[in-house]
Amino acid sequence: MPWSMPAFLPEGDQPVFLRLADAIIHDIRRGRLVAGERLPSSRVLAGELGVHRNTVLASLAELTSQGWIASQPARGMFVASALPAAAPPRRLVRRADLSSGKAQRRGERRAGGARGGRELADDENDHDDATRRTSAGFALPPALFRDEPRDASARRGMLHMDSATPDPRLFPVELLARAWRRTLLRNGRQLLTYDSPQGHPALLRALAAMLRQTRGMACGDDELLTTRGSQMAIDLVARTLLAPGDAVAVEALGYRPAWSALAWAGAELLPVHVDRHGLDVAALGRLAEQRRLRAVYLTPHHHYPTTVTLSPARRMQLMALAQRHRLLVIEDDYDSELHFEGRPVAPLASADPLRHVIYIGTLSKILAPGLRLGFLSASPDVIAQLSQARFVMDRQGDWPMEAAVAELIEEGELQRHVRRMRRECLDRRDALADELHGKLDSSLRFEPPRGGMALWAEVDPELDATAWCEAALAAGLALARPSQWAFSAPPPNALRLAYSELRRPELRRAVEILEKTRGAAKRKKPVGKKRGGR
Amino acid sequence: MPWSMPAFLPEGDQPVFLRLADAIIHDIRRGRLVAGERLPSSRVLAGELGVHRNTVLASLAELTSQGWIASQPARGMFVASALPAAAPPRRLVRRADLSSGKAQRRGERRAGGARGGRELADDENDHDDATRRTSAGFALPPALFRDEPRDASARRGMLHMDSATPDPRLFPVELLARAWRRTLLRNGRQLLTYDSPQGHPALLRALAAMLRQTRGMACGDDELLTTRGSQMAIDLVARTLLAPGDAVAVEALGYRPAWSALAWAGAELLPVHVDRHGLDVAALGRLAEQRRLRAVYLTPHHHYPTTVTLSPARRMQLMALAQRHRLLVIEDDYDSELHFEGRPVAPLASADPLRHVIYIGTLSKILAPGLRLGFLSASPDVIAQLSQARFVMDRQGDWPMEAAVAELIEEGELQRHVRRMRRECLDRRDALADELHGKLDSSLRFEPPRGGMALWAEVDPELDATAWCEAALAAGLALARPSQWAFSAPPPNALRLAYSELRRPELRRAVEILEKTRGAAKRKKPVGKKRGGR
Repeated sequence: MPWSMPAFLPEGDQPVFLRLADAIIHDIRRGRLVAGERLPSSRVLAGELGVHRNTVLASLAELTSQGWIASQPARGMFVASALPAAAPPRRLVRRADLSSGKAQRRGERRAGGARGGRELADDENDHDDATRRTSAGFALPPALFRDEPRDASARRGMLHMDSATPDPRLFPVELLARAWRRTLLRNGRQLLTYDSPQGHPALLRALAAMLRQTRGMACGDDELLTTRGSQMAIDLVARTLLAPGDAVAVEALGYRPAWSALAWAGAELLPVHVDRHGLDVAALGRLAEQRRLRAVYLTPHHHYPTTVTLSPARRMQLMALAQRHRLLVIEDDYDSELHFEGRPVAPLASADPLRHVIYIGTLSKILAPGLRLGFLSASPDVIAQLSQARFVMDRQGDWPMEAAVAELIEEGELQRHVRRMRRECLDRRDALADELHGKLDSSLRFEPPRGGMALWAEVDPELDATAWCEAALAAGLALARPSQWAFSAPPPNALRLAYSELRRPELRRAVEILEKTRGAAKRKKPVGKKRGGR
Repeated sequence: MPWSMPAFLPEGDQPVFLRLADAIIHDIRRGRLVAGERLPSSRVLAGELGVHRNTVLASLAELTSQGWIASQPARGMFVASALPAAAPPRRLVRRADLSSGKAQRRGERRAGGARGGRELADDENDHDDATRRTSAGFALPPALFRDEPRDASARRGMLHMDSATPDPRLFPVELLARAWRRTLLRNGRQLLTYDSPQGHPALLRALAAMLRQTRGMACGDDELLTTRGSQMAIDLVARTLLAPGDAVAVEALGYRPAWSALAWAGAELLPVHVDRHGLDVAALGRLAEQRRLRAVYLTPHHHYPTTVTLSPARRMQLMALAQRHRLLVIEDDYDSELHFEGRPVAPLASADPLRHVIYIGTLSKILAPGLRLGFLSASPDVIAQLSQARFVMDRQGDWPMEAAVAELIEEGELQRHVRRMRRECLDRRDALADELHGKLDSSLRFEPPRGGMALWAEVDPELDATAWCEAALAAGLALARPSQWAFSAPPPNALRLAYSELRRPELRRAVEILEKTRGAAKRKKPVGKKRGGR
């Protein structure tokens, strides 16, 4: 349904019906009216313009005869879907332009050149009065990021093993919709207006209890802040607590969007070696002796992407290092709830009397990334400062949703859902492992992960994991490219296979695609000695 | 309902029941178990620890006799609400510490001092093995902001004239709850996972059509980005497009949270005079001749806080200035939909062929701030760059809510709601104006605003608007303090009275409070000649 549309009748000597037709052509040419868009009725237009309806009808007849608009019986008048040639095509800016020469030149010109008005004339010649340029009239700085935000449309209809996220088919829509509605009907006054950027008190209370009870953390309500998923938590910490030039250690194999946030704050990132026990803390110690480190960012519980758990000895060494060098430790614990076997390892934040750790968690992995609910825990002074910064960033969280989720936790519904997700993930992990052992045992080497949503598999050196990914992608299986995990070194020859979104028959099909496309991954010349199967 | 609670039994020579008691005391003292918290049942504890239930019962008896825990008949064991004196009280950090000496000293120490391990010992003496410090173990930079995020709890039970936000009682809970549920059931797969940071395509399409139809903007789907309210839009633009040291002109009387975002990006803010026609564009022109300006931030439609509309002549001059100096124009059009009389003035962005304008809008003023739905429109190259930045900031928007709102626009429900809100606001404006004329005609001078949710009233010079605010606040009427609008000069002697949240009887009571507290605002010595009433 269209909005009411104010129309403007330009001054001029021509008859009114021609001036109206010209105004509409002008709006079509500059893009205000787009192909296929419905026009207001002649009655509405006449009323808005204060002219006789016959005048409007004469205009519309003129426009129809010129081909700008067309009528659809019983529906009204529409802007023509095929427009007359006089309409200049809109120039499209391709994404590639942004990071390459064009933006660069703009940046240089901004830094050095004059900004006189005459410069404009030769900057872009393709506009006239009736068109708008598709690029900015002010200097655009060079693009900062090489992240590729996901284009989900490309993934439609494919099997998804590229993203360790919950199966949306398991999402409790009814439960959450009910809680959302109920909490708004009850507390709308409080939930719909501006309030504290720290988060809804009921959710802070519920999450603090969860951290105390399940993770051994001594967390009070004033030691917690809600965020839009873990990404905002990382960005907020980086922006608020890092200064340009600060040296920050990161896992050499790790999570790129976190690196982008740290780098955006001006940090210098220093990669530290990762092995089969997680971050190489001895290497971190040597680095801290050479360089004055401000912080370290890591994923100790299920290392991203390899899924291994940082060993207890390394944890103690890391905390000793943090104390010796007064480090800020950013602990990204993105899927703590999904641990299958044995006791979950307590986070670094649970044994941190001197408060070096900022602990980051999220509900993305147990409910859905689409909800954008994350949180961080730190000492009260840090929380107070981050809350003020968060106010400037996006003012506050999604209070209606925060209140609804708090209610689900109080009622034990989220706990039940977590148990169900854990069971499902474990089943799917086992199903995937079975399929891989059956079909690809000679090409992949892996340990079934002890928790989480993905399986890390090293690829036979005779095969090229990146080529395998590309071939699988072409065959309908979405896989993460190994290059995205490597900070600088060549990508690991490994696949990270997320099993959480797929049911057993889907996992079977996915492994069949992997089997079928293995041939495309064969290296012409092997790079190393062939390793045996497990 | 508690989560399952992993318990750890420390090694030692003592009997198991004493070691368990010690572990629980330890958890209480360090804050992992808090006063009043329920303990797992003895059966569950025994199972988790692998000991006999009698051993657990002996522990609990010991703890009860020491006063650490207490049983509640038929409910179980709880951590005692009054704890034995041996538990050290947790030291609280007051907010004031952040911006004052303490954080400052930390900042200095960080810049200059050694960070050796020994420094820790004398830093804080109040921790032992069983307590955590309440302040960070790493250096905390000085606090950046003087914004006071709202503490809504202080406003409970008061009449609200401090915030121009919609009456939550008019919020269409059922409509939105239904749309949310329906869209998730239909498209959960698409909505609950990661997707484009630019926003949900259906909402982009719907908003672009709205901007074309109601604001005369030639806006394509690739010229739009959704944000978390207008605050994130301003912050995203500042962070991505400004460089430290960039000079940015702002209204000398204006919106402080926007200034905070611009300053956070390192911009130097230069206030420009505002008069009864809005921003003084001639003064901006003089500034632009003296200083190399990068951008100007303004609220041209209903100037914040004075509600006046920037005149057409000034608009044309402003756009000419933007072209001459290649300025980035940040147009914050926060309540365009709520214009009562005459044609709404088309935004600057509707006559911007050379693309200087970044246009910012929000649904906070027609639905609710609590939904955090805003958007910005700019040329496609700017949108592409901001989308990449937004991916790093919080990854993506709230797709389920975006899809639900898009559906409401497609069905015309939002349009109907806007018309209703406009009618309500107009009624409330008139009611407030009537009451003010009746009771405070000699003390206030105002024009009823032509749109928006608040009325700007200049206060008789014999009265002090700030003192009036404080007195009203104490009497149960929440008013915005004049100091928050002034960039640097002394605060204007005026009140901004938001009428949108109050019904007629509430408006009457609010004006009665204003009348009753007027005496407290009397200046001892008048600062200027008394102006007559209107």
